[in-house]
Amino acid sequence: MSKVAFLGGGSFGTSLAILLGNKGNDVSIYDRDILVVNDINKNRKNDRYIKGLQIPKNVTAYNDVDEALEDVEYVVLALPSQIIRIGAEILRGKISSDIPVICIAKGIEEGTNKTLVEVINDVIDNPVVVLSGPSHAEEVAFNIPTTVVTSSKNMKIAEEVQDLFMTKEFRVYTNSDLVGVEVGGAVKNIIALAAGVCDGLGYGDNTKAALMTRGMAEIVRIGTKLGGNIETFLGLTGMGDLIVTCTSMHSRNRKAGILIGKGMSKDEAIKEVGMVVEGITACHAFYKLKEELDVEMPITDGLYRVLFEDRKAKDVVDELLKRDKKSEVY
Amino acid sequence: MSKVAFLGGGSFGTSLAILLGNKGNDVSIYDRDILVVNDINKNRKNDRYIKGLQIPKNVTAYNDVDEALEDVEYVVLALPSQIIRIGAEILRGKISSDIPVICIAKGIEEGTNKTLVEVINDVIDNPVVVLSGPSHAEEVAFNIPTTVVTSSKNMKIAEEVQDLFMTKEFRVYTNSDLVGVEVGGAVKNIIALAAGVCDGLGYGDNTKAALMTRGMAEIVRIGTKLGGNIETFLGLTGMGDLIVTCTSMHSRNRKAGILIGKGMSKDEAIKEVGMVVEGITACHAFYKLKEELDVEMPITDGLYRVLFEDRKAKDVVDELLKRDKKSEVY
Repeated sequence: MSKVAFLGGGSFGTSLAILLGNKGNDVSIYDRDILVVNDINKNRKNDRYIKGLQIPKNVTAYNDVDEALEDVEYVVLALPSQIIRIGAEILRGKISSDIPVICIAKGIEEGTNKTLVEVINDVIDNPVVVLSGPSHAEEVAFNIPTTVVTSSKNMKIAEEVQDLFMTKEFRVYTNSDLVGVEVGGAVKNIIALAAGVCDGLGYGDNTKAALMTRGMAEIVRIGTKLGGNIETFLGLTGMGDLIVTCTSMHSRNRKAGILIGKGMSKDEAIKEVGMVVEGITACHAFYKLKEELDVEMPITDGLYRVLFEDRKAKDVVDELLKRDKKSEVY
Repeated sequence: MSKVAFLGGGSFGTSLAILLGNKGNDVSIYDRDILVVNDINKNRKNDRYIKGLQIPKNVTAYNDVDEALEDVEYVVLALPSQIIRIGAEILRGKISSDIPVICIAKGIEEGTNKTLVEVINDVIDNPVVVLSGPSHAEEVAFNIPTTVVTSSKNMKIAEEVQDLFMTKEFRVYTNSDLVGVEVGGAVKNIIALAAGVCDGLGYGDNTKAALMTRGMAEIVRIGTKLGGNIETFLGLTGMGDLIVTCTSMHSRNRKAGILIGKGMSKDEAIKEVGMVVEGITACHAFYKLKEELDVEMPITDGLYRVLFEDRKAKDVVDELLKRDKKSEVY
């Protein structure tokens, strides 16, 4: 059994902490919110993020990062994508450089356009493993069968992390296409937000399926341009995660999109959802990146205009649906 | 404007007949059920298949196929996959060999393992165009934005049919990969049925997304083996149709799967759904085909055991979920 420390006590982090705790590991969670820390330690719950949890006794929350990291063997960075760099900076000098760091966030860094693994390795030399796939925290926490993927530059450590997390209900596969895993997971949040907008505008299942399909084409285009493999985009971390994020009521990206489709501003929608909406920052970051790389991403483009240029969602979706294309191209 | 005849007054046929009627075409529907014929002609409805329709005056139903085919310029075969051959036989000798025949069914013929275009061209020499994509009839009939694909050995005629159907809300693209379009559309019904079983058993969104992703891998494996292109399976007629069929409450395949997951036999489920469940025949046909071609299709295999060998759905899904795989392969 291992000592695993989580930086961040959000929904996905907490659900994985429960999983590891139930497997018998010694788990610590660092969170800066003392209310979350107390809820976990005193009530064995984390109501701020998921209702109904039963957090095992071998999961302990800390408001002090040094205490959380004591004797750690694995660190899980369970933070929003845009503060992953800060998370890595917190770790610098505090953990030995051979401790694997597991990143469960999805996105690219605004400004630098770096993947999160690149961001982490900008700051610390530790081996980084990405864990990704169709895995809503709300279901993982309650042992609903889920399949995910681990990926790393060092596949031996990806396999070690596979063993760390694997249970009967939580199936972990490995995939050596690290770029594909990271990019698919990041772009799918943009498409899920757009799919939510489509739902919020009152369009149907046919419309949303078309949007998701065209969204998949955007993932493939930007992803292969960045060096990922098409097989990865067709897999759990691409299509699988796209599907769950676009169709599940657990998805915050989709929820935010629905609210925007119904007429809310992005700031109102973020406030209403009450958690980080990764698709919004991903849209901003990938809009800049696709311009730089000259990759066609009309959904990302349209969503950018809605989110950052005050265009009406309905007008943008209508334009997207009515693009004058005659043959189905990718 | 053209004279278009439909063989079959089911849900998808009727929704397309309404679309063409509203575009000003002269549309006839042949159906052997006099109640359907009368409902269309007298009430401008087709309550047996979709409630709430408003069928335009230039759509006329016939109980006599010769009347329906008079002066026809396009024929739409709107029949279940397993009677497409009978449909083609009805047309033989009744229409000139240059009249395009449009096939909107999805499947392969049991016993021969032929695609439906091959089946039609076994009987008549007419050019055949396939129309496929994420397009629930219930939404097409009410003008909800929908995108589909036409494909044919003769792409000039596929483009002609594209123009015939294209409206502001019904976007038609072309794709010259006829085999890919046909196989993707057929196999996706098997996966949708399995996804329904997964829902019926009470599994979650994570589980279903994983099943759909692995199902996509089956589509790609059998589809490329039969000569289709991976880009087609990633497109509207593959992934797009898979998504809509696995996630929409309009899907009969999904509905039948849910009922089977809840413990009904396949015959009880078919009766309850009240319409043809293409996934059941597709499962039987593709099970035989994959054995013959030695293609790995574990979901099709598992579903076959549930449908035709009386295995318990829960046991089969559990086995599928718990296959000992260590790397994400396709």
